[in-house]
Amino acid sequence: MSLIQVINPNTSLAMTETIGQAARAVAAPGTEILAVCPAHGVPSIEGHFDEAIAAIGVLEQITLGKAQGVSGHVIACFGDPGLLAAREMASGPVVGIAEAAMHAATLLATRFSIVTTLPRTLVIARHLLQQYGFSHHCAALHAIDLPVLALEDGSGLAQEKVRQRCIQAKREDGSGAIVLGCGGMATLAASLTQELGLPVIDGVGAAVKMVESLVALGFGTSKHGDLAWPLQKPLSGAFQHLN
Amino acid sequence: MSLIQVINPNTSLAMTETIGQAARAVAAPGTEILAVCPAHGVPSIEGHFDEAIAAIGVLEQITLGKAQGVSGHVIACFGDPGLLAAREMASGPVVGIAEAAMHAATLLATRFSIVTTLPRTLVIARHLLQQYGFSHHCAALHAIDLPVLALEDGSGLAQEKVRQRCIQAKREDGSGAIVLGCGGMATLAASLTQELGLPVIDGVGAAVKMVESLVALGFGTSKHGDLAWPLQKPLSGAFQHLN
Amino acid sequence: MSLIQVINPNTSLAMTETIGQAARAVAAPGTEILAVCPAHGVPSIEGHFDEAIAAIGVLEQITLGKAQGVSGHVIACFGDPGLLAAREMASGPVVGIAEAAMHAATLLATRFSIVTTLPRTLVIARHLLQQYGFSHHCAALHAIDLPVLALEDGSGLAQEKVRQRCIQAKREDGSGAIVLGCGGMATLAASLTQELGLPVIDGVGAAVKMVESLVALGFGTSKHGDLAWPLQKPLSGAFQHLN
Amino acid sequence: MSLIQVINPNTSLAMTETIGQAARAVAAPGTEILAVCPAHGVPSIEGHFDEAIAAIGVLEQITLGKAQGVSGHVIACFGDPGLLAAREMASGPVVGIAEAAMHAATLLATRFSIVTTLPRTLVIARHLLQQYGFSHHCAALHAIDLPVLALEDGSGLAQEKVRQRCIQAKREDGSGAIVLGCGGMATLAASLTQELGLPVIDGVGAAVKMVESLVALGFGTSKHGDLAWPLQKPLSGAFQHLN
Amino acid sequence: MSLIQVINPNTSLAMTETIGQAARAVAAPGTEILAVCPAHGVPSIEGHFDEAIAAIGVLEQITLGKAQGVSGHVIACFGDPGLLAAREMASGPVVGIAEAAMHAATLLATRFSIVTTLPRTLVIARHLLQQYGFSHHCAALHAIDLPVLALEDGSGLAQEKVRQRCIQAKREDGSGAIVLGCGGMATLAASLTQELGLPVIDGVGAAVKMVESLVALGFGTSKHGDLAWPLQKPLSGAFQHLN
Amino acid sequence: MSLIQVINPNTSLAMTETIGQAARAVAAPGTEILAVCPAHGVPSIEGHFDEAIAAIGVLEQITLGKAQGVSGHVIACFGDPGLLAAREMASGPVVGIAEAAMHAATLLATRFSIVTTLPRTLVIARHLLQQYGFSHHCAALHAIDLPVLALEDGSGLAQEKVRQRCIQAKREDGSGAIVLGCGGMATLAASLTQELGLPVIDGVGAAVKMVESLVALGFGTSKHGDLAWPLQKPLSGAFQHLN
Repeated sequence: MSLIQVINPNTSLAMTETIGQAARAVAAPGTEILAVCPAHGVPSIEGHFDEAIAAIGVLEQITLGKAQGVSGHVIACFGDPGLLAAREMASGPVVGIAEAAMHAATLLATRFSIVTTLPRTLVIARHLLQQYGFSHHCAALHAIDLPVLALEDGSGLAQEKVRQRCIQAKREDGSGAIVLGCGGMATLAASLTQELGLPVIDGVGAAVKMVESLVALGFGTSKHGDLAWPLQKPLSGAFQHLN
Repeated sequence: MSLIQVINPNTSLAMTETIGQAARAVAAPGTEILAVCPAHGVPSIEGHFDEAIAAIGVLEQITLGKAQGVSGHVIACFGDPGLLAAREMASGPVVGIAEAAMHAATLLATRFSIVTTLPRTLVIARHLLQQYGFSHHCAALHAIDLPVLALEDGSGLAQEKVRQRCIQAKREDGSGAIVLGCGGMATLAASLTQELGLPVIDGVGAAVKMVESLVALGFGTSKHGDLAWPLQKPLSGAFQHLN
Repeated sequence: MSLIQVINPNTSLAMTETIGQAARAVAAPGTEILAVCPAHGVPSIEGHFDEAIAAIGVLEQITLGKAQGVSGHVIACFGDPGLLAAREMASGPVVGIAEAAMHAATLLATRFSIVTTLPRTLVIARHLLQQYGFSHHCAALHAIDLPVLALEDGSGLAQEKVRQRCIQAKREDGSGAIVLGCGGMATLAASLTQELGLPVIDGVGAAVKMVESLVALGFGTSKHGDLAWPLQKPLSGAFQHLN
Repeated sequence: MSLIQVINPNTSLAMTETIGQAARAVAAPGTEILAVCPAHGVPSIEGHFDEAIAAIGVLEQITLGKAQGVSGHVIACFGDPGLLAAREMASGPVVGIAEAAMHAATLLATRFSIVTTLPRTLVIARHLLQQYGFSHHCAALHAIDLPVLALEDGSGLAQEKVRQRCIQAKREDGSGAIVLGCGGMATLAASLTQELGLPVIDGVGAAVKMVESLVALGFGTSKHGDLAWPLQKPLSGAFQHLN
Repeated sequence: MSLIQVINPNTSLAMTETIGQAARAVAAPGTEILAVCPAHGVPSIEGHFDEAIAAIGVLEQITLGKAQGVSGHVIACFGDPGLLAAREMASGPVVGIAEAAMHAATLLATRFSIVTTLPRTLVIARHLLQQYGFSHHCAALHAIDLPVLALEDGSGLAQEKVRQRCIQAKREDGSGAIVLGCGGMATLAASLTQELGLPVIDGVGAAVKMVESLVALGFGTSKHGDLAWPLQKPLSGAFQHLN
Repeated sequence: MSLIQVINPNTSLAMTETIGQAARAVAAPGTEILAVCPAHGVPSIEGHFDEAIAAIGVLEQITLGKAQGVSGHVIACFGDPGLLAAREMASGPVVGIAEAAMHAATLLATRFSIVTTLPRTLVIARHLLQQYGFSHHCAALHAIDLPVLALEDGSGLAQEKVRQRCIQAKREDGSGAIVLGCGGMATLAASLTQELGLPVIDGVGAAVKMVESLVALGFGTSKHGDLAWPLQKPLSGAFQHLN
C-alpha cells in the first residue's frame, strides 16, 4: 500500500475535494490518495504574490506528509509553486501538475496548447515552459478570462468556457493535445478528451501517475547536489515550525 | 490485464532478454510485458545508418503488436529510432527509452548526466536532447568507448566501465542524476542507484511506467494533426507487408 | 566530368523526372545528373512513417551511386529523409533539398517563408529548422493542403495554389525569400522568382549546386567522428543487400 | 529627497549592515537608504527552501516600505527571492541584486563570470540567467564552497577565497567582468575592481543606482498586465497581515 | 560635475536638439549633457547601410568626447550603431539607447512591445534583441511606416501615429511596457506614459541614467579581453584622423 | 563569363594576393575573380573598431564592383564586416567567408571547430554563430594568439601554429570539420585537409563557390523587405562618394 500526498496549494476545500477526486480516479489499486490543503494561505492562486504565500503552505504540507510516511507528493496548482523548495525537503518524488501535464503532452503529440483561467497567469505558464524546456512544444496559450474560483461556483459557466476554448484551440492551433491549466479543471479532462477526440490532459492525474511510477522505479528526489536537504539553520518566528 | 510491447530495435536476442527482464522487474501487477525484436535488421545500433534500418523493424513490430492487442509500446534503444513514425502507426502510447529516462531525470534533479557506449552515438543523444527540450538539463555526456554488444559478452568489463563513468560523473558534473544511455544497461540501474546514492536511471523501466501511466489515464497517441495515421498508399516491394 | 546522383526518395517516376529536369537545368557544364528513385517504397512522402520507409530506399541508392562512381548525392525530398545515415555511408558530400534551400535563403534574405503541401508535413520542416539552426530565420510556414501527388496530376491546380500562397507569403510575412517545400515543386521556382520579384527557392537546384561546390572544393563527408563509416556488422534478412 | 528601501531577505543584522553600507556608499546626494531585514525567517539563503521562506519576509518589508513612502525597493539577495511577487505589490520599481549586477555586466563587457558562495546556489544563478536572457553572456560560474555567513565571521577567509576565485576567473574564463554572487560580498567590489583591473560588480550598488534611475525617469513597476496588483482575497491565518 | 556625451549618429541638427533636450530633462543635478552629431554622414538611419556610415561618425565623436574629458557616452540611435567598436575606444561606459530601453523595460514588466518607424528597421531591432538576450521578453514589434525624419517635419503626424500604435500595442500585445524605437521619439515618452498608464520608455533618458549610474559605481568599459583598446595600427587615408 | 568580386576588407596587398589566389584556385572555368581591397582603411582586422572602418571600404568596393558589372561579391574577412549593409547595396549575391565556411562545415559534419588568430576576435565569431544559427554546431573555438599579419610575415610560424591547433582540435573537440577563421589562412586549407584527414575549410573558397551557385540559380540578394536598396539620402562630406 502506497500513500501519495496531493497538495492543493490554495485553501479552498471545494477545490481540494475536486482535486482529490481526480487523483483517486486514476490511482492504482495499491495507491491511497491523501488530498490536503494548507490551513492558512490564499483561497486561489492567480499571480506571483499568491504563489509566494502558497509556497509556504506547500512546504508545511510536505513536512506533515513526511511525518505521515507518504511515498511522494503532488503539488496541485498549475504554477507548480514551491516545487524546487519542496524537492529539497522531500525524500520521495515531488511532481507539479504543470510539469506533469506538459511532460505527458509531449509524449502524445508533437505540440500542445494550454487553456487556463485569467490572462495574468499566462506569464507563469510561459516561465515554466522555458524552465522545463518545452517552449517549442507549446503552440499556443489561452485564457478564459475567469478567476480560478469561478470553477467552483456551481454555475458551470467556467467549465463551458474551458470547453469552448479547447474546441477553438483544436481548430486553430495545429496542436495534437490540450493541457488544462488549473487544478480546478481536473475533472473535465476525461469528457473533453472524449468529445474532442484528442488528449485533453489534466495535470493532477498525470502527476499522480508520475509519482507512482517514480516510486515503483525506486527513485526519490536526488539528494546529491542542487536538491540536497535544506541546510539546518534556526528558523525564527512564524517559520519555527518548519525547522 | 494490460499488455505492453517492449521493442528492442536490434536483433540481439540476448539484449532482448535483458530488456524484457528489466521491463518485467518494474511492471505493475496488472501488466504483461511482451519483449520482442525484429526478425531482420542490425545486431546493435551505433549510428544513424543502424538506426534507419532498425526503424523498419520497429514499425513491423508495431504492426504485430497492434494485431496482438497491446495497450502501448516501448522503443528500447537509446536513440528512440522510428519514434514519430511509430506514433503515426499506433493508437496507444509509444515511448522511447531515451525520452523516458530524460523526462524522469528532470523530475528528480535539476541536471543530469548521460553515460553511453561509443562516442559516435553521443551526437544522437545531443539531437534528442535538443528535440525534447532538455539540452539545458544535461550537464555532461560520457561514452565508455565500448560497443553495445560488449554489454552482452559476459565479461562484465563494459558494466564495470559504466560503473566507473557513473562514479566520475557524480564527482565532476554537478548533476543530481545519471541516465544510462543504452537499453543493454537496463539491469545496472538498481545497483548503481544503491551504490552511488543518487538516481541512476534506466530508460526501459521508466518507459514501461510511462506507458502504463498514459494508458491508465486513458490516453493514446494523438491522432489529431501531426501524428495522424499514415496516409494510405500502396507500399511496394519489400515494404508491402507494412501496408 | 562529374556525376551527381539526385535521389528522389519516393517511387514516383513522374516526380523523379520533374526533379531530374530541375537538376539538369542548373547543373554546370561538367556535371552529369543521375536522377533515380527506389525500386520499392512509398509513392509520396507525407509523414514520419513514409520517411522511415523512404530512408531505406535512399540508403540503397547511395550504395548504387557509390558503385557507379558518383561524386556526391542529393536527397530530393523536403524532409531530407535518411540524411545523416546517408552521410555515414557516403564518401562524397550528401545534401538534402530542405537544408540546401534553407541555407540558400539565409544568404539572400534575413528571413524566409516556407510553402509546402499538407499541413501534417509542417512538423517535419519545423524539426529541420531547429536541427539546422534556422528557426529564427523562418518567418512563417504555409501548407496548400493538397497531397504531394497533386503536383503530378496534370491539372495545374496544386501549382496555382503554390503560386497563390507564395503571393500571400510575400504580402504578409515580411520575408525576403520563399522556400518551396517539396521536390515536386522544383520546376516552379524560376517563374515564381520572376513573377514575384524575390527569390523563390527550389531545394533541388540549390542542392545540386552545393554538391558541385563541395566537390570542387575537394570535400567529401567527414569520416572523422560522428559521421564515420557505419560499423561493419552482419545485416540480416531484408537488409542483407546493404551489407 | 528620495527614500530607497534595501531589503536584505535574510535575518542577519550584520549582513543587513554590510548591505546598507554598500548601498549608502553609492547613493546619490538626494537618496536616503532604508536598509531592513525581515523579523522572522532564515539567517542566510542557500537554496530554494530558504528562498521560499525569505520571499515572505521580502513581501512583508515591501508592505512596510510602501507605508513609509519609499520610492523603490531593492531585494538584496543574489537569488532575487520574491522578485515578481514584490513587483505585483509595489508601485515603485523593484530591482533584485542578481539582475542588477548581470545587467550592469552586459553594459561593460561582452561576457562575465559569477563568483558565489556554496555550489548548491549555482543552480539558482543559472535559472536567473535563463529567465533574464543572459545565459549566453555568462562565461562561467564559480563557488568558493563556503556558506554565506562565513562572510560575516570576521576571519576574512571567505573574502580571501572570493578574491582568489576572481583572480582565477580573470585568468581562465575570457570574461571582461566579474559579478559577485552574494549580498554579503557587497563591500568587496571596489577594492577588487581596483586590484584586478576589470569591473567586479556588486549587485547592491548596481540595484540602488537602477532604482534611482527608474524613479528619476518617472517609472514605477507596470501595473498593466502580468504585474498588476495582486487580486484582493481574504488571506487567512499567518498571512492576514499581508492583506 | 560630470559630463556625458550624447551622440546622435545621424547628421540632423533638429534631431540632435530633440535628443539633447530629452537627455537634459532627466540628467542628475551634477550631470552636464554634451549633445553632438557627426559632421559628415547620413541625415537619418533606416537600414544597415546607413548604420555602417553612421558608425564612423560615432567613433569620431567618441574620440572628440574623450578629448573633452567626458565621463561616458550615449549612442542615441535605436540600432546602437558602432556600439562594440565605440566600447573598444572608450574608457568610460558606452550605452546604446536600444539596449538601455530594453534593459529598463525588463525591470518594469515581464514583456514589452517596440514601436518604431519604418518596417525595414525591424530586423535591426530583432538582431539586437537576440544579441542582448531579450528575444523572449519582447511580445511584439510595430512600425508606423513613416521615415525617421517625419518625426522632425513639424506636422505632428508621425507623433500621432506613434501614439496610435502604442495604444494598439497596449490593447493587443499583453505587454506591460512599450519601448520607443527611435531617438527622435524621445520627447514623447513622458506624455505617453501618462496617457497610457504604463511605462513608455525612451532610450535616450534611460541611457543617460545608466551611464550616470555606471560612472557613479566607478565602472568604465572593461579593458580586459574582448573590448580592450583597438590595436595600434596605421590607419590610412580618410581614416587617418581616427589614429 | 562571370565576374566575381572578392573584397579583402583590409588594406594589405599581400593578403589580397593570398585571397585572390585561393579564390582563383577553386573558381569554375567560366568565372573570373576580381580580388580587391580598399584604398583606405586598416591593414588588418582584429576587433570591432577595425571592422567598423573596414565596413566602409567594403561598401566602396561594392559600388566599384557594381560599376564593373560583377555578378556577385565575397567579403573576405572572417568577421563578415559590413555584410548586411553590402547586401542592401548589391543586386547580386554577397557572401561572407565566415558564413560560407560555417555553412559548408554543417553540410560535411555534425559539429565543427574554429581556429583563428587573436583571442579578442573570438567574440566576433561567437556573435556570428549566434546570428547565423550555428551556435550548437560549433564544438569549440581556438585562437593561436598571433595577429593577422603574422600570417604574412614569411616566417611560416603562424601557419605552423594554425596546423598545431587544427591537430589539437581534431584530437580533443569531437568535431568532424575545422573552419579556418581568417582570410589570410585561405591557402592552408587544402594541405591541412590532406594531412588531417577531415575537411579543413577556408571561407574564401567556400564563398566563391556559393556566389557562383547563387548566380547560376538566377538569384541575387532579395530586394523585397529588409535588404531593399538603401533609401536615397544626401550623404555628406567624406561619404559623398557613396551616394
